[in-house]
Amino acid sequence: MNTRDKPTVVAEPRKERRKSDEWRTALTRIEPNKILMRGYPLDELMGRLTFGEAIYLLFMGELPSPGIGRLMEAMLVSFIDHGITPPSTLAARNTATTGAALRACVAAGLLGFGKYHGGDIESCIQFLDNGLDMVRKGASLREAAERLIEGCKENDETPPGFGHRFHTRDPRAARLFQMALELEVEAEHIQMIRAVEIALQEHCVPGEKPLPVNIDGAIAAVCGDIGIPPSIANALFIISRVPGIAAHADEERVRQNPMRQIDPKDHTYDGPSERRLPERRK
Amino acid sequence: MNTRDKPTVVAEPRKERRKSDEWRTALTRIEPNKILMRGYPLDELMGRLTFGEAIYLLFMGELPSPGIGRLMEAMLVSFIDHGITPPSTLAARNTATTGAALRACVAAGLLGFGKYHGGDIESCIQFLDNGLDMVRKGASLREAAERLIEGCKENDETPPGFGHRFHTRDPRAARLFQMALELEVEAEHIQMIRAVEIALQEHCVPGEKPLPVNIDGAIAAVCGDIGIPPSIANALFIISRVPGIAAHADEERVRQNPMRQIDPKDHTYDGPSERRLPERRK
Amino acid sequence: MNTRDKPTVVAEPRKERRKSDEWRTALTRIEPNKILMRGYPLDELMGRLTFGEAIYLLFMGELPSPGIGRLMEAMLVSFIDHGITPPSTLAARNTATTGAALRACVAAGLLGFGKYHGGDIESCIQFLDNGLDMVRKGASLREAAERLIEGCKENDETPPGFGHRFHTRDPRAARLFQMALELEVEAEHIQMIRAVEIALQEHCVPGEKPLPVNIDGAIAAVCGDIGIPPSIANALFIISRVPGIAAHADEERVRQNPMRQIDPKDHTYDGPSERRLPERRK
Amino acid sequence: MNTRDKPTVVAEPRKERRKSDEWRTALTRIEPNKILMRGYPLDELMGRLTFGEAIYLLFMGELPSPGIGRLMEAMLVSFIDHGITPPSTLAARNTATTGAALRACVAAGLLGFGKYHGGDIESCIQFLDNGLDMVRKGASLREAAERLIEGCKENDETPPGFGHRFHTRDPRAARLFQMALELEVEAEHIQMIRAVEIALQEHCVPGEKPLPVNIDGAIAAVCGDIGIPPSIANALFIISRVPGIAAHADEERVRQNPMRQIDPKDHTYDGPSERRLPERRK
Repeated sequence: MNTRDKPTVVAEPRKERRKSDEWRTALTRIEPNKILMRGYPLDELMGRLTFGEAIYLLFMGELPSPGIGRLMEAMLVSFIDHGITPPSTLAARNTATTGAALRACVAAGLLGFGKYHGGDIESCIQFLDNGLDMVRKGASLREAAERLIEGCKENDETPPGFGHRFHTRDPRAARLFQMALELEVEAEHIQMIRAVEIALQEHCVPGEKPLPVNIDGAIAAVCGDIGIPPSIANALFIISRVPGIAAHADEERVRQNPMRQIDPKDHTYDGPSERRLPERRK
Repeated sequence: MNTRDKPTVVAEPRKERRKSDEWRTALTRIEPNKILMRGYPLDELMGRLTFGEAIYLLFMGELPSPGIGRLMEAMLVSFIDHGITPPSTLAARNTATTGAALRACVAAGLLGFGKYHGGDIESCIQFLDNGLDMVRKGASLREAAERLIEGCKENDETPPGFGHRFHTRDPRAARLFQMALELEVEAEHIQMIRAVEIALQEHCVPGEKPLPVNIDGAIAAVCGDIGIPPSIANALFIISRVPGIAAHADEERVRQNPMRQIDPKDHTYDGPSERRLPERRK
Repeated sequence: MNTRDKPTVVAEPRKERRKSDEWRTALTRIEPNKILMRGYPLDELMGRLTFGEAIYLLFMGELPSPGIGRLMEAMLVSFIDHGITPPSTLAARNTATTGAALRACVAAGLLGFGKYHGGDIESCIQFLDNGLDMVRKGASLREAAERLIEGCKENDETPPGFGHRFHTRDPRAARLFQMALELEVEAEHIQMIRAVEIALQEHCVPGEKPLPVNIDGAIAAVCGDIGIPPSIANALFIISRVPGIAAHADEERVRQNPMRQIDPKDHTYDGPSERRLPERRK
Repeated sequence: MNTRDKPTVVAEPRKERRKSDEWRTALTRIEPNKILMRGYPLDELMGRLTFGEAIYLLFMGELPSPGIGRLMEAMLVSFIDHGITPPSTLAARNTATTGAALRACVAAGLLGFGKYHGGDIESCIQFLDNGLDMVRKGASLREAAERLIEGCKENDETPPGFGHRFHTRDPRAARLFQMALELEVEAEHIQMIRAVEIALQEHCVPGEKPLPVNIDGAIAAVCGDIGIPPSIANALFIISRVPGIAAHADEERVRQNPMRQIDPKDHTYDGPSERRLPERRK
């Protein structure tokens, strides 16, 4: 700064610290040599909670039951990566090719979740809740499903949580529902989404693209049934994809030349061929 | 666009798809109704791998051993949140107070990892590798540690991975080293960082602020010993803090008024008081 | 990557380049040694258009008239900075204190434009257009204004483009309207927003906080009157604040210690005292 | 939060506001109904300064001379857009295709400035300053240029500010140097960069790709000669490209279908054909 006018230090009137300025947080308390997350010393959680369980504790305030803990892990694994197809991953790779820091690539990737990509979790929970409201007022599951579908048709919208650009049947959704059944947490949201899926199948005209439940829909229904509110379900979604975005940005920097024009159609997969988990892992 | 000149469609000479345009990825293969991460069907991984193990598989290409899997979880848990003290968390909260989408808040938070915050993992692995080079050339661990410290003093720098703004002893680092010992993965990087810590203690003048190993240093040493390269260690660091940033952004939106001026000194913790894990969890 | 299974290169079926893959852009054509923005060689624009005029050309496709060019500059200047009060600026400063790159600080700052901050331009143009629809259907300006205000009251909302956290009268809005009048571009959107302002004043109960037109509202009205569509008005808004965010991030790095806890209430202004432009500038 | 343990409000020991917490800013002072940027009322600047001049005032603290003001505009215009070729623009378009907010697209684009893209301004000024140091110690411009080039060759690096992926001669650089000459601000940095350019031409083996000064180099040299420090030159660079990134994101949303896979090779330009400025503009 080169100021010809003599700069002046302006003494601000000493602002008082008012009660009303106080604000509160219930997440983590920091004391010298102590980090208490939701009351638990973080070092005691290390080795005793998995990352997925710790995420549940952080957002929900309490430890998950064993069943809910396993569902948390499954939901987080289900969305960890989807190859180079999503625009978010391509945004991260386009950032990585400039030599940007990894954190910048991941941030750019996250910004590529928008209305049409990763935005369905919250609207899908709302959609299912609307149906369950009808059920509480006396409609059968089937009637509620029909009315939900009709509402979407009127607005020329695909029901949130249904359909996929690449898959006609989403294997992740099927697996998540199976686990919810086995772990005995299946409840009304899963029943509602299945009722909608069945009704959609019945409406499906031969030759038309089918609209199966996708992983967004499955996560939304499971979150609804285990009491995770929509905004936190949305956070889990974001958290689950960060490793995938980071891995693509890292691979871009390690395996490709900088400043290339990235053309998604030109890629080839050269990783391991299809394989099965070893027995001890099943 | 209101163009008075008549717009012209310029026919680009048809670009040929050249072999050299091809590029490769080894992370995830997408086929209709099939998602293969490192060769494994993603739906088969659900319920069989934890999120931490899946992160290892995604980045390293193979399943972790049980011991390394447990260390992965512990590292990810150790860095999950540090209250409202980090600038990255405050950047996310300042973004959240404007009513921005959660993904935007998380991205803003991630961008608040810079040279002085979360940037130590890579330089710390390099620092330890420099010391191990000396050992390989005949120096004792102690001599190597002394020379590393001297190098930092000459540049008037704190050794990377040491010291903390709030803690004089980082409980997370101690716990991580203990687990590495129990799981029998402790090797030369951990020995090197401990040699540096001991040497720093001996140099410490009474009254001076001590420089204990911090969680960055501990993660760097453990990653070095289990074969995780620096750029991936850095990715793990970013991944581990995303839940904390997201939880603070979510709490800001739920508990505070929008468009407030966030003053970190005015906050109060009102979560659960200190507590212990139930017996079954130990 | 350490893959025990032998990696396989999977030959993708050669994808054909289809007509339908083609997409179009009308902004800038790149040829060897030639950059044509909206048809004009960029080097010919240098020295002949101001930055503000070039921004207009880029978005609108044609050169602005001299009057519209001057309004563009005035709008861009009006929003260039608002000190350390906006959350977006604080997000950028919190990012800068970590030693992050300037581009990362600016990105974090931009993300701090949300529903409650900088989001009013588009909704304000919509709001005024709703009023003008009523006028076209026969209502007087005054009746339309009353109905618009009533609609906001019913939803317990502040009319978009009105009110300010710090100012009871926004000097930038007044100046922009004066310029629009002098440059003879004032038209129905400005008349509509003034009718709303007058009606709000008449409704204002003594002691209540007044709701003057703010700079968002003024920019929205001027953009409406000179034919800039809402999404481009929003882009201008973002563009205009980037210098302010960047200047604060730069000042943070130059004048403050890294890794500080930024408390907006503790700041003092030490720049030049109030001064007037030299005569030749008027 | 569902806490089985009774939550406790922990009364933090009342922190004192210390002198040392105070921090200072010299950019903009906010008072009720008054916004003073560098001491000038912002509403008085409107209509009297161009955006480019206001940017200079904000960063440098004083009004620019008329010549420097014109160079500011020219530099900002020169870099405003480069079509769909830069990775930053592709990152922004990939974000836009998801339906993300414009600010998120712009932020993602900015993050795609990295080591290899837009990062040359600061290193180029440093490079030229190194040469000028040699001149001050007695070397001729030519000798200094030779030594600078030799240094780059030893590290197998392209001299910063030279070479372009698309152009063998950058028309923007030539125009900027011409303006600097006409406006009589040409000084030692421009002389140094020209000496390097001549030396590079002489070294150039027939058939090898030439390394002309690019726009980064030209901006760096001009900034050096008019006293703009490297970090601010870098800020100008970021500011100048924001309109381009925003315009591409806006065009993506208006003209393309959402969730498309963006393949840069498939695009066609359909804007106005090449044209000249009208006479009154010259």
